[in-house]
Amino acid sequence: MSRIVTLTTDFGQGDFDVGVLSGVVWSIAPDARLVDLSHEIARHDVLEASLMLERCTPYFPDGTIHVVVVDPGVGTERRAIAARLGAQWFVGPDNGLITGMRERAVAAQRTAEFVHLNRPRYWLPEVSSIFHGRDIFASAAGHLAAGIALAEVGEPIEDPILLEIRTPEAYADGWRGSVMHIDSFGNLSTNIERRHLTNAKPIQVAVRSAQISEMKRTFGDAQPGELVALVDSSGKLCICVVNGNAAARLRALVGDPVEVRFG
Amino acid sequence: MSRIVTLTTDFGQGDFDVGVLSGVVWSIAPDARLVDLSHEIARHDVLEASLMLERCTPYFPDGTIHVVVVDPGVGTERRAIAARLGAQWFVGPDNGLITGMRERAVAAQRTAEFVHLNRPRYWLPEVSSIFHGRDIFASAAGHLAAGIALAEVGEPIEDPILLEIRTPEAYADGWRGSVMHIDSFGNLSTNIERRHLTNAKPIQVAVRSAQISEMKRTFGDAQPGELVALVDSSGKLCICVVNGNAAARLRALVGDPVEVRFG
Amino acid sequence: MSRIVTLTTDFGQGDFDVGVLSGVVWSIAPDARLVDLSHEIARHDVLEASLMLERCTPYFPDGTIHVVVVDPGVGTERRAIAARLGAQWFVGPDNGLITGMRERAVAAQRTAEFVHLNRPRYWLPEVSSIFHGRDIFASAAGHLAAGIALAEVGEPIEDPILLEIRTPEAYADGWRGSVMHIDSFGNLSTNIERRHLTNAKPIQVAVRSAQISEMKRTFGDAQPGELVALVDSSGKLCICVVNGNAAARLRALVGDPVEVRFG
Repeated sequence: MSRIVTLTTDFGQGDFDVGVLSGVVWSIAPDARLVDLSHEIARHDVLEASLMLERCTPYFPDGTIHVVVVDPGVGTERRAIAARLGAQWFVGPDNGLITGMRERAVAAQRTAEFVHLNRPRYWLPEVSSIFHGRDIFASAAGHLAAGIALAEVGEPIEDPILLEIRTPEAYADGWRGSVMHIDSFGNLSTNIERRHLTNAKPIQVAVRSAQISEMKRTFGDAQPGELVALVDSSGKLCICVVNGNAAARLRALVGDPVEVRFG
Repeated sequence: MSRIVTLTTDFGQGDFDVGVLSGVVWSIAPDARLVDLSHEIARHDVLEASLMLERCTPYFPDGTIHVVVVDPGVGTERRAIAARLGAQWFVGPDNGLITGMRERAVAAQRTAEFVHLNRPRYWLPEVSSIFHGRDIFASAAGHLAAGIALAEVGEPIEDPILLEIRTPEAYADGWRGSVMHIDSFGNLSTNIERRHLTNAKPIQVAVRSAQISEMKRTFGDAQPGELVALVDSSGKLCICVVNGNAAARLRALVGDPVEVRFG
Repeated sequence: MSRIVTLTTDFGQGDFDVGVLSGVVWSIAPDARLVDLSHEIARHDVLEASLMLERCTPYFPDGTIHVVVVDPGVGTERRAIAARLGAQWFVGPDNGLITGMRERAVAAQRTAEFVHLNRPRYWLPEVSSIFHGRDIFASAAGHLAAGIALAEVGEPIEDPILLEIRTPEAYADGWRGSVMHIDSFGNLSTNIERRHLTNAKPIQVAVRSAQISEMKRTFGDAQPGELVALVDSSGKLCICVVNGNAAARLRALVGDPVEVRFG
């Protein structure tokens, strides 16, 4: 079956250049299956894109190639890279975007290989200093989709840039974590995971000025307008307002501390 | 030819989870042709999604599968369903989304079959209590696209939930209907249809404070800024401002009464 | 390989009718590869769409068909047309949308052929007076994608409508051009091209109240918040704020004069 190529950028839907990426991939790999993951990553927000990839990529089949153009350092010395992480591929700037995908692969003791995209024969003939998404990443992804090996498109490297991802700290009777992402509904996704919450004792969740004294299983177990804590569809503790916006109600921001106490 | 799978949600374009649906479908039906209908349905607006499906689905070929994730009751007792309506398929929550598609099929005396998606072997292995779109609907759609029969993916049911759709009331010299939908240009689409308007006499259309005393055939027959009534591309009476926004000008809302008087 | 059909409209992402275009194309050409270029063209902005096509189409392979529905004159006497420009195809209203694509083809001494889409057998059976995008353009594009020849879908014409595109004026020590487009990041793209800037002398760029006294090669050569002039990824002089919004800072609009002075 032909290869899937996913496209993620911070360009916004209205941008002229989103569609060009598909043209470049199809010019090189005419039978690639193309899909947009998101073009609404917050501008230059490498962490948000990394979290999104960590969350979405497990639902794609083996062999999928993810092109990610969130690239504040375009035109500087930052490297262009490609990677194989487990059975999926990444193409984009070397700025930490692969942190989440790599962590998953390493945790599962699977392949994590990286190359520096330094071979111009896999780029477009002319490379703009401000749009590597088109001229290097989409082009390299096209060659990978057409069957060129990872080791062929660039020089192996061992030191890709990784983000420092905050992890929750344990203390005597609970965990102290952080809001990692706020989605378009205002739900607060945290770095506290289902496994941190397996405790027989009663639970207290604190974020900003709010205290929540139990976990719900789903939105339907609470009233519209109620502030609830639940495990979201990616297995993370999430604070939400049923049919409402928790971020607005609590004036919460990415990075805010979230505490879980047992007993 | 491979099956078409359309995707409709109320997630918004910026959401992390839109792209995941494609990954799930392709993991099961690698040759499916995927297309987004809209991810901008107003949050939890089952009526809007039902109207959209009624309007769009006739333009897709036989065999198309429509996955619709507008699902305020996710995680409650509401059923997950699939349906065959004429020669097209639906997969989504049992909350009335299929009302418009079913009405068309019944009016044309075609098949209208429904099943309860209660067979876990056609779901993803782990089912989140808050994202059935990914774990049940996209998965079941993948199996249907891969050729599994409707009767195989779930138990037959006869009583899917249907919305009560307002229909226009006739009175002595005309019709009293409602604004059913307001599009992104502010055009007011109503439930009064072309067949209600076939009357040789002069016509008066009233909505909010406005009176319109003739029907136009197209925008080009009026001046920019003019308030006009015409039959829109789905065959419904529509009130518009040429190059402007009728909803804003009239402060009109979905549900507002619209009267047509003859003579 | 199957034909690529790109879709561009001014409908906005939330519109019901974007998805219908894909359905119509696939009903006629089931193996077409479909991709959205943009549905966020400013409403009725034929110039913006023409500039976008000029910029994007060179990155698509030979044989690609571009369907463009930016159609303020729908339902009036304006013609529906299709064109072959070099090795690419256009389908849409005859209102100047093809200006940029045609200019490129003519400059490269390649084919520029036009037909009037006046043969109803290549339209949908029912044609709405307000949605030719669906009923004429998508349908004709489907037939072209299915292999019907351009000369077959309509009558040859020689006089498609062309926009008057402003070009920069030379004067003694520089060029006087215009802002042609403002992207979603607020970058000001102009009609002054790389070839206008090849001069050994120091350069001054003036737009609104701002004076910029050198060209940068890329964003990374300047500080965040700095106002810079550079050659953008389509080869045009562009005025930007690094990680900021130049249009907002300078209160600049499309059409504003931009001056380049040497020495």
